[in-house]
Amino acid sequence: MIVILKPNTPEERITNLVHWLKDQGLGTHLSTGDFHTIIGLIGDTSRVDLDLLTTLDIVESAKRISDPYKLCNRKFHPEDTVVQIGDAKIGGGNFAMIAGPCSVETEEQIIGVAQAVKEAGATLLRGGAFKPRTSPYAFQGLGAEGIRLLLKAKEATGLPIVTELMNAADLPLFEEVDVIQIGARNMQNFELLKEMGKLRKPVLLKRGMASTMKEMLMSAEYIMSEGNSQVILCERGIRTFETATRNTLDLACVPLFHQLTHLPVVVDPSHATGISDLVPSMSYAAVAAGADGLMIEVHNDPTHALCDGAQSLTPDAFAAVAAKCQKIREVIG
Amino acid sequence: MIVILKPNTPEERITNLVHWLKDQGLGTHLSTGDFHTIIGLIGDTSRVDLDLLTTLDIVESAKRISDPYKLCNRKFHPEDTVVQIGDAKIGGGNFAMIAGPCSVETEEQIIGVAQAVKEAGATLLRGGAFKPRTSPYAFQGLGAEGIRLLLKAKEATGLPIVTELMNAADLPLFEEVDVIQIGARNMQNFELLKEMGKLRKPVLLKRGMASTMKEMLMSAEYIMSEGNSQVILCERGIRTFETATRNTLDLACVPLFHQLTHLPVVVDPSHATGISDLVPSMSYAAVAAGADGLMIEVHNDPTHALCDGAQSLTPDAFAAVAAKCQKIREVIG
Amino acid sequence: MIVILKPNTPEERITNLVHWLKDQGLGTHLSTGDFHTIIGLIGDTSRVDLDLLTTLDIVESAKRISDPYKLCNRKFHPEDTVVQIGDAKIGGGNFAMIAGPCSVETEEQIIGVAQAVKEAGATLLRGGAFKPRTSPYAFQGLGAEGIRLLLKAKEATGLPIVTELMNAADLPLFEEVDVIQIGARNMQNFELLKEMGKLRKPVLLKRGMASTMKEMLMSAEYIMSEGNSQVILCERGIRTFETATRNTLDLACVPLFHQLTHLPVVVDPSHATGISDLVPSMSYAAVAAGADGLMIEVHNDPTHALCDGAQSLTPDAFAAVAAKCQKIREVIG
Amino acid sequence: MIVILKPNTPEERITNLVHWLKDQGLGTHLSTGDFHTIIGLIGDTSRVDLDLLTTLDIVESAKRISDPYKLCNRKFHPEDTVVQIGDAKIGGGNFAMIAGPCSVETEEQIIGVAQAVKEAGATLLRGGAFKPRTSPYAFQGLGAEGIRLLLKAKEATGLPIVTELMNAADLPLFEEVDVIQIGARNMQNFELLKEMGKLRKPVLLKRGMASTMKEMLMSAEYIMSEGNSQVILCERGIRTFETATRNTLDLACVPLFHQLTHLPVVVDPSHATGISDLVPSMSYAAVAAGADGLMIEVHNDPTHALCDGAQSLTPDAFAAVAAKCQKIREVIG
Repeated sequence: MIVILKPNTPEERITNLVHWLKDQGLGTHLSTGDFHTIIGLIGDTSRVDLDLLTTLDIVESAKRISDPYKLCNRKFHPEDTVVQIGDAKIGGGNFAMIAGPCSVETEEQIIGVAQAVKEAGATLLRGGAFKPRTSPYAFQGLGAEGIRLLLKAKEATGLPIVTELMNAADLPLFEEVDVIQIGARNMQNFELLKEMGKLRKPVLLKRGMASTMKEMLMSAEYIMSEGNSQVILCERGIRTFETATRNTLDLACVPLFHQLTHLPVVVDPSHATGISDLVPSMSYAAVAAGADGLMIEVHNDPTHALCDGAQSLTPDAFAAVAAKCQKIREVIG
Repeated sequence: MIVILKPNTPEERITNLVHWLKDQGLGTHLSTGDFHTIIGLIGDTSRVDLDLLTTLDIVESAKRISDPYKLCNRKFHPEDTVVQIGDAKIGGGNFAMIAGPCSVETEEQIIGVAQAVKEAGATLLRGGAFKPRTSPYAFQGLGAEGIRLLLKAKEATGLPIVTELMNAADLPLFEEVDVIQIGARNMQNFELLKEMGKLRKPVLLKRGMASTMKEMLMSAEYIMSEGNSQVILCERGIRTFETATRNTLDLACVPLFHQLTHLPVVVDPSHATGISDLVPSMSYAAVAAGADGLMIEVHNDPTHALCDGAQSLTPDAFAAVAAKCQKIREVIG
Repeated sequence: MIVILKPNTPEERITNLVHWLKDQGLGTHLSTGDFHTIIGLIGDTSRVDLDLLTTLDIVESAKRISDPYKLCNRKFHPEDTVVQIGDAKIGGGNFAMIAGPCSVETEEQIIGVAQAVKEAGATLLRGGAFKPRTSPYAFQGLGAEGIRLLLKAKEATGLPIVTELMNAADLPLFEEVDVIQIGARNMQNFELLKEMGKLRKPVLLKRGMASTMKEMLMSAEYIMSEGNSQVILCERGIRTFETATRNTLDLACVPLFHQLTHLPVVVDPSHATGISDLVPSMSYAAVAAGADGLMIEVHNDPTHALCDGAQSLTPDAFAAVAAKCQKIREVIG
Repeated sequence: MIVILKPNTPEERITNLVHWLKDQGLGTHLSTGDFHTIIGLIGDTSRVDLDLLTTLDIVESAKRISDPYKLCNRKFHPEDTVVQIGDAKIGGGNFAMIAGPCSVETEEQIIGVAQAVKEAGATLLRGGAFKPRTSPYAFQGLGAEGIRLLLKAKEATGLPIVTELMNAADLPLFEEVDVIQIGARNMQNFELLKEMGKLRKPVLLKRGMASTMKEMLMSAEYIMSEGNSQVILCERGIRTFETATRNTLDLACVPLFHQLTHLPVVVDPSHATGISDLVPSMSYAAVAAGADGLMIEVHNDPTHALCDGAQSLTPDAFAAVAAKCQKIREVIG
C-alpha cells in the first residue's frame, strides 16, 4: 500500500502517522520528493482501512498495490476451481447450463420444466422458493413447500438444484439443496455470507446491483475465509442510467474475473435484460466472453395467457439456445 | 395501473390477458385507439407484478398510477409522523441531531464523545458496535461489548442511542438500544426488515447505494406492514460515476420524500462525502433542504495521530456546525 | 402519447390543457376513471415536449406510446440498411472489420498497420487525426497532416478510411475520407449532427457516455432528417460506477438496436474496456450478440517500449481475433 | 505522477520505459520494493497520457499526484476569481441571481419576465434562443430573433443577459450578449471550448451529465488556456439510476470546487430536478452549500394552461425564494 501525503505536511505529523502504522505491525518506507512524501507500507496491509487513511487531512491519497482478496485470488491459486455438483461440474473448462422457472408454482410445473430442460441440455435446475420482492405485498414464493417440490423434481430427473436462501434461519430446509444462491440484494449481507462459509456446499453468489467486481471478490472472500471454497460467481447486470433493459449486463467482468480469480463465473441473461427476446443473443455473448455457465429462465406452460410472452424462454427455444451455445464453446476452445 | 398493448395484438391474446387479470380480482377497462389498446386496471393492484407484465410479448409497457406503498404514503396519512425517542423527537417540525464516533472503541472514548456532543447540541448518540466491512479481514467492531459501552454512555449523559444491527440473531443485545439502524447494504434485506417490523422501537433505515427513492419507501413499507410505524428514513448518498466524493449525496430526496411520505427524513453527510471538510457545508445544505435531522460523525481524540484528520469532526467543529444549522432552520421556518 | 392527470384535478384545468393540446394540432381522447383522468393524444406527437408536460402541476405522468424516431425506426423500414463503403458493406448480414491505430503518427506507421490489418482481414482502416482529449495540454493529433497520411495508407492498400471529425469547419479536409466518425462526446452536439446530415457520406455515430439507446436513435434521426441515411451506430461503453474497466460495454444494445432500428450496429471493445487483454473476449461476445462490425485498435510497432503493452493488439493478435470472429459468425448464422 | 509496475517485471522492460519517459523530458525516481517497483516522475507531467500508461502490460497502475489543471487551480491562484458583468458580480463573496424563462417566446413575454425578476432581486436575465433538443422535430428556439428579443429585455431593464451558444458560427449574433452559456451536452465539445477561450467575455460552463468534477475543471482549463479567464462553473445535475428527478443534483461539488478552484460556482436547481415544487428547497440547499449564484427558471404567464404548472416558478414564488436565499447567505456568512 502506498500513502501519498499532501505537500508541506509538517514533519511531526508524518512521524505520528508512521508510528501509528508501525503500531499496527507494518513496515514503512519513506520516499521524499520535491513536493510530496510517499509512505510505502510493507507487510500484511489487508487489515488497513483504506477509507480511513484517505480521509486523514494530511493524506492526498492512498492506494493498495496488493489485492485485499487472498483466497479467491488467482495469483496465489493459479489453477481454476472446479465445483462439482452431482454429475455436473463448473469451471476449469466445464460448462454448466442452469435452467428453470423464475418461481416454483406446482409439482406438475416444476417437474415438467425439469424434464424439458434436462432433455434440452440443462445440467442443473433452478427455481425460486423464497423470492426477494421489492414490495411486501407481492407474492413471496412458496417457501418450504417450494423447496419440497424442487426436491421432487430433482428426484424425478436427477438434476441437482439451485435455489435462493434469504435467511440463515431457513438453512435446515436447504439440507438437500445442491447449490445455495445468494441474491444480488444480499451480496453484502455479510452475516449471511459468514453462514455460507460454514457450509460445505456450493454457493452461487450473485453480483449486487451497485457492486464493483472487487467488492464481489471481497464477498466471495467472506465465504471462503470461513472455510467454504466452493463459490460460483454470477454476473446478472448492474444498475445504470439506461432504462431500455432492466439492468446493464457487464460481460467484461467474465474475462476480468478469470484474470483476477480462480473461481468459476456464470452469467444470468434473463434477469440482466428482463426481456426474453434478448436472452438468446446475450447467452451467446456470455459464452463467447468465456463464461463457465449460464443461468436461464425457462417456463413450460404456453397455454397460460400470462406466461407465453414472459421473460422466460419455452423449453424449445431454450434447446435451440443451448445447442448454439455449445457450438460457440467449440469455437472459443 | 395501465397496460399498453403492442399494435396489432390479436383479439384472442387480449381476451386471455383480461381473463387472467380478472382471475386476480381486478376490474379492467379497455380503451381501443387507432394503434394501441390500453387496459386500465381497477382495484388493488399492489400485488400485480409490474415487471412480469412488462415482459409479456403483447405488452408495450405498463405503468402504475397509484403508488404501491400505502402505509408510508402521505396521500393516506397527511400528518407528519413524529418519532419520539426519550426526550428527543424527529419529524413534524422536530429536528434531531445525531452525533458520535464511527466505531465504539473504549469506554473513555464513547463517554467522552457523548458528553461533548450533548454539550454541543446533539439529541442522540450514534456509534457503531457491529460494523459492516467490505473485507472479512477488517475490524468488524466490538460487537456486544460495543453495545455495553454505548449503554454506559447513555447512562452517563441521558442521550438515547442509535446503533446498527446486521443480524436478527443479535436482537437480544439491542433491547435497551433506543433506535436500531439498518445499514445501506441491508436496505433490501427483506427478512431483516420483517424482523424490524415486529419490534416496537424506532428504526433508522439507510438508503441503499443503488436504491431509488421508491424502493426505499417499499422497504419502509416492509417494516410498517408488520406493525412498526416508527421508521426514520436516512439519505446517505448513492453510488454514481463520480469518484471525487465517496458517494453522491442526493438532497433532492429530502423535499421529495416529504411530498411522498409522512415519515421523517434525516441526512448523513459524513458517509455520503467521506471528506470531513465537506461535512459542514453539506450539513447546512441538508437542513436548508428541509431535513428533519442530521447524523454526523464526531470524534473526540485529537491526540491520536490517526484521528485528527479523519472524516469525523471534532466536538468543537461539531458545535459550530450545530449552531449554524439551528440558524438555518429558523430561516427555513 | 398518454397523459395521466393527478387525482382531483379541477375540471377547468383539464379543459385548459385539452385546448392547449388541440391548439398544437392534436386530437385528444379522455378516459375518466375512479381516481385518475387519462388523456390520450392522437396525431403527430413527435413535437410534443414530454418533459414540459410531465412538469405541469396537474400531470402525474406522461408517456409516449409511439416512438419519437421515425426515419431510423424499423417499424417503418423493416429492411436492414446496408451501408456501402468502397468494396466494404456494413449491415444486412455484411460484417465490417474496422482496424487501425488510436492515432496516426507517421507515414511509415499508418501504412504499415494498414497493410498488416488488411492482410489479417480488416475491411476498413481507422486512425485518429483529430483527437478529443480531456486535457488541453495533451497531444491533440496530427490534424490535417494525419488526414493526409491516412489517405496515403488508403492509396497503398485500397482500404476505405474512418476518422473522427470534431469541427464542421474542418469538413473540407475530409472530402476523401470514406466514413466520418462522430465521437462519444459529440453524440449530442446537434449542430454537428445537422452538418453530417447534409453530407452524402457514411457517418459512424458513437454512443455518448451517458446516453440512452433511445437518445442515440434520436441523434441518428438528426442526421437522417437532414437527408443522410447512411448512419452506422457504434456502441463503445457507457459510464457507470464500475472502475475496473474504463467504461461498461453494454452489449444488450446490439440485439435491442436490431429490434428498434434498421441501421447497422458496430462495437468498439478497445475503448469500452481500455484493457487490451479483454479485447479478444469482448470482440467474440460482440459478434455473438449479433454486431454488424467491430472497431479494434491495432498497433504495429512492438519494438517501442511504450507500445508493446498498450491497449492495442498487435497485427498477429488481431488476425487471430478476426479469424475466430468469423467462425462465431458462422455459428450465429 | 507515480507509476507502479507489476511484480516480476523484467529489468529490460523497466529500462525501456524509463528511457521512453526521459525522452519526453521527465525525470524519474525508481523505488524498488519487495514486490513492486515504483517509478516517480519529476517535471511537467501534464502532457503524459495517464490512460496510455495504465494500459501498458507491465504497469499495475499509475496515479497523478499533481493536478492536471493549472490555470483554474486554487493552489496556484489562491484568490477567488470575481467575474464582473455590468453591475453584477459573481464570486469572491458576490452572489448572482440569474433568472428567466426556459425559452424566449415573444417580446412581451421576455420583457415581462425581465421586469418581474429584476423587481424580485435577479441580477442577470437568462433565456434560451438556441435550444439543444434531443429530437430534431422539437422546437429548436427562436434563434437570432430570440437573441434580438433578449437584447430588448436587457435594454428595458438594464439586466445583463445569459444565453446558450451551440455553434461557433453563430458567434456574431452574440456580440452584445453578456455571458455565453455552454450547455451540458457541449461541456466536452473541445472545439467550441477553444473558441470560447478566444473571447473576452464571461462563459458559464454547465457540467456534463456524465462528467466528473475533474473533467469539468479540465474543460474550464480549455477555455482559460486560450486566454479567457472569466469562467463560471454551473452544476446542473448528473445522470444516475434515480428516475424520480430528472437528474441528481450533486451539491457536494460546490464546496469541493471551492477547494480545488478559484472560479465561481453557480447551481441550476430547475434543470437538475425538473420538478418546480423542488426548486425552492434545492435553491436554499445550494446557497447553504456555499454557491456563488443560482440559475432559476421563472415564467410570467399564469393564464396559459400549459405554463402555470410547469417547472418554472412564477415571479412571486421566485421573489419569495430569492428573499429566503438572501437570509441563508447571511447565516452562512
